[in-house]
Amino acid sequence: MEETFVPFRGIKNDLKGRLLCYKQDWSGGIGAGIRILAPTTYIFFASAIPVISFGVQLERNTNGTLTAVQTLASTALCGVIHSVFGGQPLLILGVAEPTVLMYTFMFDFAKDRKDLGEKLFLAWTAWVCVWTSILLFLLAILGACSIINRFTRVAGELFGLLIAMLFMQQAIRGVVEEFGIPKRGNESATALLPSWRFGNGMFALVLSFGLLLTALRSREARSWRYGAGWFRGFIADYGVPLMVLVWTGVSYIPANDVPKGIPRRLISPNPWSAGAYANWTVIKDMGDLPLIYIIGAFIPATMIAVLYYFDHSVASQLAQQKEFNLKKPSSYHYDLLLLGLLVIVCGLIGIPPANGVIPQSPMHTKSLATLKHQLLRNKLVSTARDSISKNANLSQLYRSMQEAYTEMQTPLVYQTPAALGLNELKDSTIQLASTKGYMDAPVDGAIFDVDKDVDDLLPVEVKEQRVSNLLQALMVGCCLAAMPLLKKIPTAVLWGYFAFMAIESLPGNQFWERILLLFTAPSRRYMVLEEYHATFVETVPFKTIAFFTLFQTFYLLLCFGITWIPIAGVLFPLLIMLLVPVRQYLLPKVFKGAHLQDLDAAEYEEAPAINYNISYDEQGNTINLDSGELLDEMITRSRGEIRHGRSPKVTSSTQSPLEEMKSVYSPRRPERVQSPHLSEIRLELSPRSNGRQVEIKQTPSPLGRTSHGSSSS
Amino acid sequence: MEETFVPFRGIKNDLKGRLLCYKQDWSGGIGAGIRILAPTTYIFFASAIPVISFGVQLERNTNGTLTAVQTLASTALCGVIHSVFGGQPLLILGVAEPTVLMYTFMFDFAKDRKDLGEKLFLAWTAWVCVWTSILLFLLAILGACSIINRFTRVAGELFGLLIAMLFMQQAIRGVVEEFGIPKRGNESATALLPSWRFGNGMFALVLSFGLLLTALRSREARSWRYGAGWFRGFIADYGVPLMVLVWTGVSYIPANDVPKGIPRRLISPNPWSAGAYANWTVIKDMGDLPLIYIIGAFIPATMIAVLYYFDHSVASQLAQQKEFNLKKPSSYHYDLLLLGLLVIVCGLIGIPPANGVIPQSPMHTKSLATLKHQLLRNKLVSTARDSISKNANLSQLYRSMQEAYTEMQTPLVYQTPAALGLNELKDSTIQLASTKGYMDAPVDGAIFDVDKDVDDLLPVEVKEQRVSNLLQALMVGCCLAAMPLLKKIPTAVLWGYFAFMAIESLPGNQFWERILLLFTAPSRRYMVLEEYHATFVETVPFKTIAFFTLFQTFYLLLCFGITWIPIAGVLFPLLIMLLVPVRQYLLPKVFKGAHLQDLDAAEYEEAPAINYNISYDEQGNTINLDSGELLDEMITRSRGEIRHGRSPKVTSSTQSPLEEMKSVYSPRRPERVQSPHLSEIRLELSPRSNGRQVEIKQTPSPLGRTSHGSSSS
Repeated sequence: MEETFVPFRGIKNDLKGRLLCYKQDWSGGIGAGIRILAPTTYIFFASAIPVISFGVQLERNTNGTLTAVQTLASTALCGVIHSVFGGQPLLILGVAEPTVLMYTFMFDFAKDRKDLGEKLFLAWTAWVCVWTSILLFLLAILGACSIINRFTRVAGELFGLLIAMLFMQQAIRGVVEEFGIPKRGNESATALLPSWRFGNGMFALVLSFGLLLTALRSREARSWRYGAGWFRGFIADYGVPLMVLVWTGVSYIPANDVPKGIPRRLISPNPWSAGAYANWTVIKDMGDLPLIYIIGAFIPATMIAVLYYFDHSVASQLAQQKEFNLKKPSSYHYDLLLLGLLVIVCGLIGIPPANGVIPQSPMHTKSLATLKHQLLRNKLVSTARDSISKNANLSQLYRSMQEAYTEMQTPLVYQTPAALGLNELKDSTIQLASTKGYMDAPVDGAIFDVDKDVDDLLPVEVKEQRVSNLLQALMVGCCLAAMPLLKKIPTAVLWGYFAFMAIESLPGNQFWERILLLFTAPSRRYMVLEEYHATFVETVPFKTIAFFTLFQTFYLLLCFGITWIPIAGVLFPLLIMLLVPVRQYLLPKVFKGAHLQDLDAAEYEEAPAINYNISYDEQGNTINLDSGELLDEMITRSRGEIRHGRSPKVTSSTQSPLEEMKSVYSPRRPERVQSPHLSEIRLELSPRSNGRQVEIKQTPSPLGRTSHGSSSS
Repeated sequence: MEETFVPFRGIKNDLKGRLLCYKQDWSGGIGAGIRILAPTTYIFFASAIPVISFGVQLERNTNGTLTAVQTLASTALCGVIHSVFGGQPLLILGVAEPTVLMYTFMFDFAKDRKDLGEKLFLAWTAWVCVWTSILLFLLAILGACSIINRFTRVAGELFGLLIAMLFMQQAIRGVVEEFGIPKRGNESATALLPSWRFGNGMFALVLSFGLLLTALRSREARSWRYGAGWFRGFIADYGVPLMVLVWTGVSYIPANDVPKGIPRRLISPNPWSAGAYANWTVIKDMGDLPLIYIIGAFIPATMIAVLYYFDHSVASQLAQQKEFNLKKPSSYHYDLLLLGLLVIVCGLIGIPPANGVIPQSPMHTKSLATLKHQLLRNKLVSTARDSISKNANLSQLYRSMQEAYTEMQTPLVYQTPAALGLNELKDSTIQLASTKGYMDAPVDGAIFDVDKDVDDLLPVEVKEQRVSNLLQALMVGCCLAAMPLLKKIPTAVLWGYFAFMAIESLPGNQFWERILLLFTAPSRRYMVLEEYHATFVETVPFKTIAFFTLFQTFYLLLCFGITWIPIAGVLFPLLIMLLVPVRQYLLPKVFKGAHLQDLDAAEYEEAPAINYNISYDEQGNTINLDSGELLDEMITRSRGEIRHGRSPKVTSSTQSPLEEMKSVYSPRRPERVQSPHLSEIRLELSPRSNGRQVEIKQTPSPLGRTSHGSSSS
C-alpha cells in the first residue's frame, strides 16, 4: 500500500475497492449454502465466549456497572454494523481484553473521585468515547493506516502473544479463584464452606482441563484414524462448541450430591431484568460532569485511540495475510473511520465499544479458507469426473478444469493474476505427462487420479463474503435472549476455553516459535524447518536469533507487566505502539539488515502463494491424506504459512526428474546450491495414482551435521 | 522347541542350556555398570506399584488377612530366588491380578464355612498351594511346556488384553471409590463428610489423570523436540517413577486447607506392626483343618496350577520374542519346576505366591534392549572414530567394527549365526560404495557418517543378565522397610498408574490393533501397515479379519465376565486354557488355513531379525533421529515387531538403485510384483552423510485406491 497522507484519499480508495465486490460479498456468501454454518458457528463461539467472560470480569471490576449484557450487546451491535457497512468483512469485532483493561483502569480512577464516582463513571466513559472517536476520525481521514506496512511481524506478533498471555492469565486466575470465595455470586451458604470450595476448585480443574484437552484434540479430527470421513469432518468443524456442550453436560453429573452453586456457573443479569437498563440512558448524565473531567477524558481517550488504531489494523492485517491469496481489497482507512463511529455510538449508550479482535479475525479467515477449499474441490472433482467419462485426454481435462475453476473466480479489478496454484502444477504435470506421451491418450485413473490430483491443483483460497460475519454477530445478539441458557455454562469451562484460545493462537506466531527454538536441542533445530516457514533458522546465526528473541521477550514482559500497574497501566498501548519506531530506527542499528529482514519476515511477506501438495504432514505420508487435512495442517499449526517445500530456483517442473535424481549420486552437495531456505525438494511422479513418489530429502547440512554430532549423547 | 514328553528331559535341557551362560549372566550384568539402573528402576516401579495396590485390594477383599506386606514379601522373595536360581532371568515374578482374584474367590468361599472361616483361611490356602505345587511339579517333569509353541498369538494376546482389562477395571473402580466411603480406612470423620468426599474424588480424578497423561508423555521423551539429549534420555528412562514422585508431591499442595485423610493414601500395616505377623506361622494351623477341606483344596489348586502354567509360560514367551534376537536359551520346563517350589514355600508361610507377570516381563526385555543398544552403540562409534582417525578405508573400517562387535558377543553354543544386521547392511553399503570406488579411499564423514550409519548397522539385541532382575527384586524387598514412605503415595496415583500400565501393554498387541482396525475408516486402514507388522491387512479379506476379531473379542468378554461371577469365577483359567485346543482344532474348521496363519501370525513367528534403519518414525524423517528414538519407536509401540520395510524379494542391496528408480517411471505397476506385504521400499543412498535419501513409497494399491476414493467425502 503506497503511503498516501492526502486527506480522505485512503478512505476513498477503500470504498471504491470494496463497493466493486460488495454485491458479490453477499451473493457469494449465500451461494455457499448450508456449509457457511461451519465457519459461522466456529467464530460465533470463539467470539461469544470470551465476550461473555469479559463481561463477567468487567462485572467484578466495576461492581456490576457493566456486565455480560453490555459486552454482548456491544459486540452484536458493532458486529452487525461492521458486517453490513464495514470494509473488510473478514474482520471480526468484539469487546476485547485491552478494552476491559482500559475500562478497569478508568473505573479504578473514577470510583474514588467524589464528584465522579461509580454513578457518573459511565457518563465519563461516554466522554472518553467521544474524544476517542474524534481522534479515530482524524487518524482515518489523514490516512494514518498508510503506515500499516510498518507494523511488521515484530509488532503484530508481540501484540498477538500479549493477547495470548492475557487470555492465559485469565484462564489461570479464573481456575484459581474457583477455590476461593467469589466476590459476587449467588452460591448457597453451604457451597462456600471450605470443604465445598475445595471440591468446587477440583471440579473446576477437571472441567477446564477436560475442555482444553478435548477441544485441542477435536481440532485435529480430520487426521484421526478412527471414524468415517464425514464424522471426522464434523468434529473438526464443530468439535469445539460441541465440547463446550459436552463439558457443560458433565458439570451436571454430580448435581444430586452437591449443593446448588457447585460448580459455579455464569452470573449475569438477564437483559430484561431490572439492573440491566441503567446504562442505556447514560447520555442524559453526560452534562452533569464537571468540565475538568470532560477535558480530562481526553487522556484515556488518546490511549484508547492508539490502542484501537493499532489493534484494529493489526487484527485486520492478520486476517488478510498473503498466504490466503485474498482476491478482494483491504480497507484499513475506511474501517478505522467506521470504528470511530461505532465507538461514539457505544459510548453514548454506555456500553464498552468493540474493535477488531485477535485471534478471532485470523481464525475467521482460516475457517473460510477451509470452506472455500471444500467448495472448489467438489466443483473440480465433478468436472474432472465427467470429462474423464467423456474420455478426454489430459490437456482437455486440464482445460475443462481450468474453465470450471476460473468460472468460480469472481472477476474483480483487484484480482491477482489468477490462481498461480492451478497453472503452476498444470505445467509441471503436463510436462511430465508429455514426456511419457500421455497427452493424447484418454485420461484414466493411472494418469490423473481425480480425488488426489485435484487437491494438488487447488490453491489456497478464502471464501470472502459478509454472511458468516453477519450471522455470527446476530448469533451473539441472540445470546442476550439465550442468557438463561448461557448461565448453565460452568465458569470453569470458560477458563478452559480461554486457555484453548490462547494456545490456538500460538502456532504460526514466529515469535513464539523462536522462543521454543531457544529450548530446542541443537540437534533438533532443523525440525523447525519442517513445520514452519522459518528460513531464518538457516540464514541467521543462532546467537542473533537468540538475542533478538530475548529482546522481544523482554519487551513483551514489559508490556505485560505494565498492565498490572493500577492506573498507570492505562499507558500500555503506547508501549506497543512504540515498537513500530523501535523496529524502524533502533533495531537496524543493533542487527544486520539482512538478519532483520529474515527475522522480521520481510522475505516472508513476499513469499509466493503456495499450494497444498507441498504442505507437510506429520504422518509423513503426503499421498493419502484427505483433502481437508492438509489444509488443517496448514491453517491450524502455521497460521496460513507454509514452509517452502519447493525452491523457487530448482523445482521439479523445471528439470526432468531423472536428471535431478542423478544429481543425488554426486557424493558432495552439487555446486548449483539450492536457495538457502530449501528444506526439502519433493518431486511428484505422474502417474501418482498408484501412490508412488520419489522424495529427495535434504536437510540443511550445517544443522544436519550437528544433529548427527550430538545424537550420540 | 521339539515336543518331548520324556520325563525330565525338558528340565535337563533347560538346565544344560542356562548353566552354560550362567556365569556370563552375572559378569555381563555387572559389566554394564551404572546404566543397569535405568531398566532396573523402570521394572522395579512397574512391578512394585501394582503389587502394592494388589495388596490394598487383597486387604479389602480378605478383611485384612492379607495386606501389601504379604504381597511385597512374596514378590521380593520369589523374585530374588528366581533371579538367582531361575532359568530365564528376563522373566519377572510378582503377585498378579489373577492370583488376587483366586484368593478372593477362595476367601469368599472360606469365610462363610463355620469350620473354616477367616481364621483357618490361610491354613487352607497353604493346602491349596501344596496341591498346586505338586501339580506344577508334575507338569514340569512331564514336559508340559513342550506345547508352548501351541500357545499362539490368539491365546497370548487374549490373555494380555484380559490382564489389561483387569488393570483398567482396577483403575476405574479405584477412582470411583474415591468418591465413596472407604471400606477400611483411617480417615478422620470430617474427611468422610459428603462435601469432603466429593472434593477427595475430584482431587483423585486430577491426580490419576495427571499421572496417566504425564507418564505416557514421558515415555516418548526421546522424540521430544525440547531439552538436551541427555535430559530427554533421562526422562524417557526414569520419567514414570519421576511422575509418581511429582504427583505425590502435588497431592501435598493443599495439605493445609484439607482435613487429614484427603487425598486418601496407601493403607497398610508396617511389616513390624502387630497385625502383620499372623500369617508367617500359618503352618502350625494346617493340621487343624477338617480332612474334607484338605482334599477339597485340590479343586482350586487345579485352577491355580492351570493358571500359573499358562501365565508363567506366556509371560516367559512374551519376554523372549523372536524380534529381540535373544542369544541365550529359554527355560520353560525348569522355571515351571522352580515355580512349583516357590508356590509351596509361599503357601507354608501364608503369603500369596508370585508367578511370571505380564506386562512387566516383556517390559523388562524391552528396557534391556534399549540398554544393550546404548552399550553397543558407544563401543562401535568409538571403534569407528579411531579407525577413521587412522584414516582406514571403508573395508578396513567395517572389519574393525565387525571385530569390535563380535568381541561384545558372548560366544555361546546357542548363539544364533551372529548378527544378521551387521553383515547384511555391510554388504549393501560396501557394494554401493565400491560401485563408486570408495573402497580404498580413506573413509571420511561423507562416505561413512559414524553417528548415523552405526545405528543402521546395529541389530536389535538384549542385554541378557540377572543383575537387573535381582536388583529390582531386592528393591521390592526394600519397599517393606520403606512402607512408611510408600504410605505417602495417594491411592489416586496408584489408580493412574494402573491405567498407565494397561495402556502401555496395548501397543503391539495385534488383537488390540485389529479391534482398532474395525473402527478405522476404510480410507485409513493402510496406515496400520505403516505402524505395525500387520501383513494380514493385505492378505486377509476384511470381512474375515472382522469376524475373527469379533470372535476373539467375544471370547475375551466371556473370560472377563466369568471373573465377575462370585465363586464359579475360580474357573476362569480353564476358559483361557481352553483357547489352545480351540485355536488348534476348532478355528481351522471356520477359517482358511492361510488366513489363520496370517491372523495368528505364524508368519510373524518366522520373520527374520530386522534392523533399525527400516523401522518407521512418525516425523517421517528417518535420517536425523537419535539412536534411542528408533528403538523406542519399535519397542514401545509395537512390542518389538517391525513391519517389513524391505521386501525379501526386492532389496536395495540386490539391485543397483538407479535401475530400481528407473522402474518407477513405467506408468503401471511392473509385472515383477513385490511380495504382498511390501508396504514400502526404502533404499538408502550412500553417502548418507549429507542426509540425502531417495524414498520410493508405495501403498498397497487396493487400499490406496479406496483411500483416494473416499477421501473426497
